[in-house]
Amino acid sequence: MTVVDRYAGSARIAEPGEGIGLDELALATRNHGLPLEALRYEVTPPGLHYVLTHFDIPAVDPGSWRLEIGGAVDRPVTLDLADLTARPAVTARVLLECAGNGRARLEPRPVSQPWLLEAVGTAEWTGTPLAPLLEEAGLSPGAVDVVFTGADHGVERGVEQDYARGLPVAEALRPEALLVWAMNGQPLPPQHGAPVRLVIPGWYGMAHVKWLTRIDVLTEPFTGYQNATAYRLKVDAEDAGEPVTRIRPRALVAPPGWPDFMTRERFVRAGVVPLSGRAWSGRAPVTRVEVSTDAGSSWHEAALAAADPAHPFAWRAWTYDWSASPGPAELLVRATDEQGAQPVEPEWNRQGMANNLVQRVPVTVLGAAVG
Amino acid sequence: MTVVDRYAGSARIAEPGEGIGLDELALATRNHGLPLEALRYEVTPPGLHYVLTHFDIPAVDPGSWRLEIGGAVDRPVTLDLADLTARPAVTARVLLECAGNGRARLEPRPVSQPWLLEAVGTAEWTGTPLAPLLEEAGLSPGAVDVVFTGADHGVERGVEQDYARGLPVAEALRPEALLVWAMNGQPLPPQHGAPVRLVIPGWYGMAHVKWLTRIDVLTEPFTGYQNATAYRLKVDAEDAGEPVTRIRPRALVAPPGWPDFMTRERFVRAGVVPLSGRAWSGRAPVTRVEVSTDAGSSWHEAALAAADPAHPFAWRAWTYDWSASPGPAELLVRATDEQGAQPVEPEWNRQGMANNLVQRVPVTVLGAAVG
Repeated sequence: MTVVDRYAGSARIAEPGEGIGLDELALATRNHGLPLEALRYEVTPPGLHYVLTHFDIPAVDPGSWRLEIGGAVDRPVTLDLADLTARPAVTARVLLECAGNGRARLEPRPVSQPWLLEAVGTAEWTGTPLAPLLEEAGLSPGAVDVVFTGADHGVERGVEQDYARGLPVAEALRPEALLVWAMNGQPLPPQHGAPVRLVIPGWYGMAHVKWLTRIDVLTEPFTGYQNATAYRLKVDAEDAGEPVTRIRPRALVAPPGWPDFMTRERFVRAGVVPLSGRAWSGRAPVTRVEVSTDAGSSWHEAALAAADPAHPFAWRAWTYDWSASPGPAELLVRATDEQGAQPVEPEWNRQGMANNLVQRVPVTVLGAAVG
Repeated sequence: MTVVDRYAGSARIAEPGEGIGLDELALATRNHGLPLEALRYEVTPPGLHYVLTHFDIPAVDPGSWRLEIGGAVDRPVTLDLADLTARPAVTARVLLECAGNGRARLEPRPVSQPWLLEAVGTAEWTGTPLAPLLEEAGLSPGAVDVVFTGADHGVERGVEQDYARGLPVAEALRPEALLVWAMNGQPLPPQHGAPVRLVIPGWYGMAHVKWLTRIDVLTEPFTGYQNATAYRLKVDAEDAGEPVTRIRPRALVAPPGWPDFMTRERFVRAGVVPLSGRAWSGRAPVTRVEVSTDAGSSWHEAALAAADPAHPFAWRAWTYDWSASPGPAELLVRATDEQGAQPVEPEWNRQGMANNLVQRVPVTVLGAAVG
């Protein structure tokens, strides 16, 4: 790996009050989020699902594409796309969320992709289970990590690299782990990893490696950049930090009424305003969703759709009827799973990872329509 | 129209050196641009085409959707989706570009959707010509403007509105004007105007009204917000300004080599580096594309693909082989059409509209690979 010196070192933390820079903006205009009104769709339509690519979207020819499975295995395997798609196929409805979602709301702000709240989406992913492939290759008894390498290539904090992530072997052997070639019934779009990506339900997006080219079994923990340096919960630059793994609970509301163009502030008419949204967690079942319409002074239980056993890793719909009186209001919504609730106060970390702070939506309630 | 007072008045101009604010960022994360490596695709794949929505993406039920054609016509018409799609259909490959593309590069910066350079895309649009529909309705002899109204609703600069744009009647009667229900062979996605939008080739994006509900023929010029206030080339807040109409010429290069994650700066190996990209103009045929690899000191003619008579409103591919020597370099590319060339120096206007300043791509050329 080449080290490009001038980009080496830690990520920068913005000064207090410092606006978003052109570098952060360039990431925000390349990558894109789910417009929150699209929470109305149980399955996110094409082009509305969030996208985060570290480097460029690579051009991978599906005809010459090969996947190599090697490292600590008895029988290394090479598959082409026909080999892979001839295997047993399953379709799973899975929520993905970027580990950096919520980063731009942190103060001070870690300088990176500046997500607000919209780095999320739910798709129907079609692929073949990974575990039987690994078993056919024959895992070494000492296997610890399975490393997934993509065709995307670039420099990050001075380290030139193909994007690669290691996953504990027990996770890679979960029956839900899939090698995926279709999204919502269509071939994977380029920006979602064509021709083949990993989907590992429950984990933040960085683990679902796109544009897969290699799978390597290791008998030692993987020490590549994206595991050892990036995607860690660090208190400061010297802290090795804990790895980012499963998606923390979150609920979002589709902002009601209509927006002001520039501020995105909302307007509704007084009366009963039906609120709706989605809630999810990748670490444990969601147990409740609560709504506050008075900036967090009081909380009300929302009606949460029953968990669908067919889609344990999808988000769940929730609804709440708000009796809105004229004047300013602030909506909050929070999810609780079997391990705990979303925080109402921010919990800072140096890379701005896994920030599941509750959403706040300022709303102006206008007088009821006349006539 | 309700006027929401606290948002009335002119758009704000950022202070010198002021970073992007959270309001601009919220627009940048909702809307999204074409990652420039996707210039490799002649037809932009689903989800990579730029999207700009002023308000929320509306939920329009295609079953109950109706289009009304009224105003100064002899025979007002109401059509449902089956009526419309039963009419003669054509498919046209058309480039769209947001009139605000390039805004965030202006100094001082008009505060609005902060596009850099990526608010562009080319799709295959399927629909039926508008002119025969207008002729069947019977245009008044005094017809001046045709107004297209969408289902998207919100507040802009204090004015509550359904998004609506007027088009001169001669433009509405051009044979290329289409009422469109499919994009790249699939039903229109929600964010691109489902179920039906206008496509008016050659014009900036604001004219291609999405989520169409009404078409009204006027015998006076349309004075609605999006024509009379927004989308004008103004020198200051008091200037009525000239209307924004056709797309100015532009060429973009797909940035070569590989990027640094945070800065998006590029790295290539010394040697011959093939450069490629697209060029377009909505006002006149593109006549040449030039490339500078020395920050604008010298310019070289690129090889421009012949115009395809079947697709007069698509972009055109260009290529140029760069002999790259180790060290820092800056690439520029500019298009010229029959009316003139892209500017190398910025031409400021108060709303940041139609800024077709040339692209600049800093590149570090590394020593040739050894081995």
